Amino acid sequence: MKLVLLSGGSGKRLWPLSNEARSKQFLRILHNPDGKRESMIQRIWRQLNANPVSDEVYISASPKHAELIQKQLGNKVCLITEPEARDTFPAIALLSAYFHSELAVDPGEVVTVMPVDPYVGDSFFTVIKQLEQALTLSQADLALVGVAPTYPSTKYGYIIPAAGGAGGNAGQPFQKVIGFKEKPSEREARELIARQALWNCGVFSFRLGYMLEELEKRGWPSDYLRLLPLYRELPSISFDYEVVEKAERVVVIPYDGEWKDLGTWNTLTEEMGARETGDRILAEKCANTHIINELDLPVVAIGLSDLVVAASPDGILVSRKSLSHLVKQVTKDVRQRPMFEERRWGSYRVLHRQEDGENREVLTKALHLQAGKNISYQYHRNRSEVWVITAGEGELVLNDQIRRVRPGDVAKIPAGAKHAIKAITDLDIIEVQMGSNLEEKDIVRLAESWEEIRGAENPG
Amino acid sequence: MKLVLLSGGSGKRLWPLSNEARSKQFLRILHNPDGKRESMIQRIWRQLNANPVSDEVYISASPKHAELIQKQLGNKVCLITEPEARDTFPAIALLSAYFHSELAVDPGEVVTVMPVDPYVGDSFFTVIKQLEQALTLSQADLALVGVAPTYPSTKYGYIIPAAGGAGGNAGQPFQKVIGFKEKPSEREARELIARQALWNCGVFSFRLGYMLEELEKRGWPSDYLRLLPLYRELPSISFDYEVVEKAERVVVIPYDGEWKDLGTWNTLTEEMGARETGDRILAEKCANTHIINELDLPVVAIGLSDLVVAASPDGILVSRKSLSHLVKQVTKDVRQRPMFEERRWGSYRVLHRQEDGENREVLTKALHLQAGKNISYQYHRNRSEVWVITAGEGELVLNDQIRRVRPGDVAKIPAGAKHAIKAITDLDIIEVQMGSNLEEKDIVRLAESWEEIRGAENPG
Repeated sequence: MKLVLLSGGSGKRLWPLSNEARSKQFLRILHNPDGKRESMIQRIWRQLNANPVSDEVYISASPKHAELIQKQLGNKVCLITEPEARDTFPAIALLSAYFHSELAVDPGEVVTVMPVDPYVGDSFFTVIKQLEQALTLSQADLALVGVAPTYPSTKYGYIIPAAGGAGGNAGQPFQKVIGFKEKPSEREARELIARQALWNCGVFSFRLGYMLEELEKRGWPSDYLRLLPLYRELPSISFDYEVVEKAERVVVIPYDGEWKDLGTWNTLTEEMGARETGDRILAEKCANTHIINELDLPVVAIGLSDLVVAASPDGILVSRKSLSHLVKQVTKDVRQRPMFEERRWGSYRVLHRQEDGENREVLTKALHLQAGKNISYQYHRNRSEVWVITAGEGELVLNDQIRRVRPGDVAKIPAGAKHAIKAITDLDIIEVQMGSNLEEKDIVRLAESWEEIRGAENPG
Repeated sequence: MKLVLLSGGSGKRLWPLSNEARSKQFLRILHNPDGKRESMIQRIWRQLNANPVSDEVYISASPKHAELIQKQLGNKVCLITEPEARDTFPAIALLSAYFHSELAVDPGEVVTVMPVDPYVGDSFFTVIKQLEQALTLSQADLALVGVAPTYPSTKYGYIIPAAGGAGGNAGQPFQKVIGFKEKPSEREARELIARQALWNCGVFSFRLGYMLEELEKRGWPSDYLRLLPLYRELPSISFDYEVVEKAERVVVIPYDGEWKDLGTWNTLTEEMGARETGDRILAEKCANTHIINELDLPVVAIGLSDLVVAASPDGILVSRKSLSHLVKQVTKDVRQRPMFEERRWGSYRVLHRQEDGENREVLTKALHLQAGKNISYQYHRNRSEVWVITAGEGELVLNDQIRRVRPGDVAKIPAGAKHAIKAITDLDIIEVQMGSNLEEKDIVRLAESWEEIRGAENPG
């Protein structure tokens, strides 16, 4: 069985901690059993290592998250990148084609996909391991995991099993599925629960050949290299709507352990180990209030009840917990560049922005490079940069000249000048960018590895 | 009559907007009739210009606020500086000695002192104008203004007039005072109000000679140059306790117009013109909630009631309004340098601080110099600086060398190097300080005026 974790997810539901560059699954706001901070994707990864369900685990993700995934999970992760985030049907179509034509996977092989960010207990993975056998025994096209509802939620989708519990499959854990209901009213939800309906948690298992046939039926190629250029034309629709709800033979395995969709501050804060995170919090007379502070400023909370306060370089949220699901909607007009990003080489934070009204902009950043890592050899068309080394030691390449840099050293980098830097020890830099197009995309990358950078420019 | 505005006030009651360098009276959080932002001191100054009560108005203030007062009120302000903030008795003692021996003011001249930060209607100044005549007609030592209470407050001091209203002074607005009561219980406050008691709003009128006698009685010199070196030995006590409550002949003029002590976020927000100030606020389903945002970040508020959210470079406060008086107490452990200061030459903001654990520190600041202003010629013992010019044009002096600087120019300023800069047009600089003692006091100032700086170094 091949297991694929789908790393989609909105950048705005956990604003201001999440943004375009740092979706919620990458936020280090949970705690592992040792009390260390971990992200949702790190939690799932840790659980999968402790409860292996497959030797072959892949992550389907946006290429812009590739660096971050490698940083959080290590370099051994197998990534299948999507050209852009669309929805789960295009993502699963593409990864199926990839397995088929690139990896030559047998059409009889079982593929299981699941979201990267459910908050589950370890027994969830035991259920996932049963999916392959359920497909075999039931001869179904699809096998799902259904979560036993804990309340009549109106925001989830429900999987309706055939009457009679295990559906006649005596001794087997799976049940035949006879229907689906998305986001029912509360009254409908109560009726569904009375009928043993289960929450759809986005875990789907199928034989690769089934998905290839589904592609062919719709007129899409099952060859990866032919499908890839058509990716943007695939309908932006969920796998549930496009495939599962139309399938004839579907079974479900119930899971009655812990499961949470940590999609809003309200649900997330319930799982945050400590009541507060972040430095220099001073709280007085507060009840059921969480403070998540990523800024280098003290947060003082006095007399708060049932609130979440989240502060990051992107902004400050103060929300009643029960209304925190509105944050995505409310912040839809907040258009700004991400103010904090984790990168392959470390991370940066925007400290200051200034515009002069004539399309000139100044951006001051604090960069942190991890020892041994380097920024690629690059130049910018429309901006100049000044680097002030403030801590650590590094090796700087500027227009093919190599020199050692230490705290207090300054590099002036005019537009067009080729530059790169490698951290010998952990390296901190204050960067001042000046120009007319201060976006990340104004980068012409010349070389990535330090050997290449030094070798190309200094062959001796 | 000489009018003196006492500019004392705590730096912590309106945290995080107020700090050591920027007391509450200087915060531009009110609005003038044209809708422009103004501070409490600017509001009083504007009202005094529209309703003059004296040709001679002085401000008694800490020398560290001198630059800020001149910046907010202009250079024509007459300042009497106190060596340190103690309390109102030392402040009034010192200014009386100053009038006596430095300005040779006649002992029969009336001096009126008042706080710089009451929120009052224009008729307040009409009452102040009547104080001199009240002193003359009553032959009293002190004439006060008493505010007609609007509720039985337990946090103010009460002035108790003689029974029988105007105290026998038929046709005169003043009443004889027979006692005082500080911070009564609510029951006592109700009884006081039934006896026509008034709130003490800190306005005191006396003949200069009276105060000089009070000093002599206590063994303090009435000569300014002799009193000044003893200032720190004067008891740190209020003028009310030390003088007013012990005086035999005191009268009060009632004032029944608008008066507010904008000392807490709770009272202040009632007078803030707009519900919110600051950029990029997104509020949803909020009631009786004020957001004051001085950061360059969006603040999103969802479902809040009766809260104040205040964000500045010094920190973030989220407080139930009715508990906002706790902020001074809660933040007493927040020990940090001010992150934003207004200066004679402009302002600066700390963008980033970094410590390496070995007493080395890095501080990144954004400086803004107003056109025509300059930073004094100075050097630092324990820190080096890098200046990156990001907007405007300036003239830089570095170790006696003068040069023009423009955006993109960089100056490296080692420890011990003499440096100054003048803004030709409005000038923005990113400054990176590195060293072991990044406090403002590590400055050796060599010259202040640009003529002097250029003349001394470049005599030609």
